Amino acid sequence: MAKKKTTTSATPFIDALRVGEGFVLADADTRSTPAFTGDKVQGKEALVAADDELDTLQEQLFAMSRTGDTRRRLLLVIQGMDTSGKGGIMRHVVGSVDPQGVSITAFKKPTAEERKHPFLWRIRKALPEPGIIGVFDRSHYEDVLVVRVHDLVPPQQWARRYSTINDFEKDLVDDEVTVIKVMMHISPQEQKERLAERLARPDKHWKFNPGDLDERQHWAAYQEAYQVALDRCSPAHAPWFVVPADRKWYARLAVQQLLLEHLRALDLTWPTADFDVAEQTARLEQMR
Amino acid sequence: MAKKKTTTSATPFIDALRVGEGFVLADADTRSTPAFTGDKVQGKEALVAADDELDTLQEQLFAMSRTGDTRRRLLLVIQGMDTSGKGGIMRHVVGSVDPQGVSITAFKKPTAEERKHPFLWRIRKALPEPGIIGVFDRSHYEDVLVVRVHDLVPPQQWARRYSTINDFEKDLVDDEVTVIKVMMHISPQEQKERLAERLARPDKHWKFNPGDLDERQHWAAYQEAYQVALDRCSPAHAPWFVVPADRKWYARLAVQQLLLEHLRALDLTWPTADFDVAEQTARLEQMR
Repeated sequence: MAKKKTTTSATPFIDALRVGEGFVLADADTRSTPAFTGDKVQGKEALVAADDELDTLQEQLFAMSRTGDTRRRLLLVIQGMDTSGKGGIMRHVVGSVDPQGVSITAFKKPTAEERKHPFLWRIRKALPEPGIIGVFDRSHYEDVLVVRVHDLVPPQQWARRYSTINDFEKDLVDDEVTVIKVMMHISPQEQKERLAERLARPDKHWKFNPGDLDERQHWAAYQEAYQVALDRCSPAHAPWFVVPADRKWYARLAVQQLLLEHLRALDLTWPTADFDVAEQTARLEQMR
Repeated sequence: MAKKKTTTSATPFIDALRVGEGFVLADADTRSTPAFTGDKVQGKEALVAADDELDTLQEQLFAMSRTGDTRRRLLLVIQGMDTSGKGGIMRHVVGSVDPQGVSITAFKKPTAEERKHPFLWRIRKALPEPGIIGVFDRSHYEDVLVVRVHDLVPPQQWARRYSTINDFEKDLVDDEVTVIKVMMHISPQEQKERLAERLARPDKHWKFNPGDLDERQHWAAYQEAYQVALDRCSPAHAPWFVVPADRKWYARLAVQQLLLEHLRALDLTWPTADFDVAEQTARLEQMR
């Protein structure tokens, strides 16, 4: 914990990574480590050091929902290019939380059934219950990213979606959902290395698809689509956070700390018993 | 690993814990540690030591399902009296697996909607997809346990359910579901201590409910209901495993090892690439 204090700067990750007015994605350094001054070893230590606090806050959130003390829940949205490390976030950050308090949904290419409905239909179905940390591996933003890059629907249709998304997220926030939107930001060079590793290792072949290289050729169009989404869908109540992700250890620490800082702000506590503790203790003692 | 070899006996946990002909629940020692000769420290070490293998097998199962090489999935059913440690299994055993490959469903008192349907309706809806380890925190067995103890439906109705369950599980097994049913077996003395701890600790009060003490008074009836379920629903293709659970460290190790032994039996491997690796590597290299 002492080590963490010397390496985590005074700036919260929330402030260092929040997308504000005039943010330019192309200018963000994918190898930088905002709000953290330590190296990889210290970063990994800081990740482990924060586990207990994250555990406690998550359990308090869960407990307060069970006793009816809160309807609050979190929605962590993870977006990023192929190989940006979304899976690693699921495994190493989300995976460190009690699985009973977490709900992960991975949004793939919409099914035939899903395509019959408005694009938010499958999203709404996957929203977390009170007390739960919901995690979206990809999300409704795909409907203004891949859909825009490939014109999967007419432009006038995807163009309307930015304001639809803003209205939707405003409703969520008003309904006690803490929305945390994270873009895992890698460089094309880093992606090339990661794809090369998937091709070099037989135990990683299943993660590779020749289509990944086709998509890579649209890199610039994707970055542009991300820039527009960041510009148009980052209101103060549900801002984007852009996490430099060329260094996996940093990206994991950053997402963990974003979760933690949002949880801390909720003033969580252990619920007070709604029964007479002394009475129940006496009753239990009398039992065989 | 060396330590593990010296403390895990030659008997697989599957054989040591499987419910066979003539099994008597009342005779099972809730503090014993079948198939393991080590102490608590060694047990905790063995749990950690097996993490990597569990990780790899789970990822292979997941990978093979993604490439269409298998439809296999696991269903781990966890039953037990209040405080028997079901939550600890979710947190410490299931929680050590990549959350993207796991799906936990906790079955509470049926909702009004659920009560309108046959008792297996909500169970079927929660079955794992191919490649996934599904985990049930309580299950369809509640419908012959709490329902039987309190006669929540007429006896002739719950009496029919044993064969309905057997048919259902047979269909699952025929459909490439590996069914692993675990009863966490504690003594009433151990439950008393664990309830007392919940009452003594303000951070545990939310887990306590005065109704837990009412339920405790039906201990004998529950044990009888479990005995009948074990007698009637333990065919060779989907047997019960009774895990002595007074020692939390042992119960966690046992459930992990049961999972592991079942996964090992599936002959999992990394899927072979369905694309030309050299060709794709050359293509990637030519990209900027």
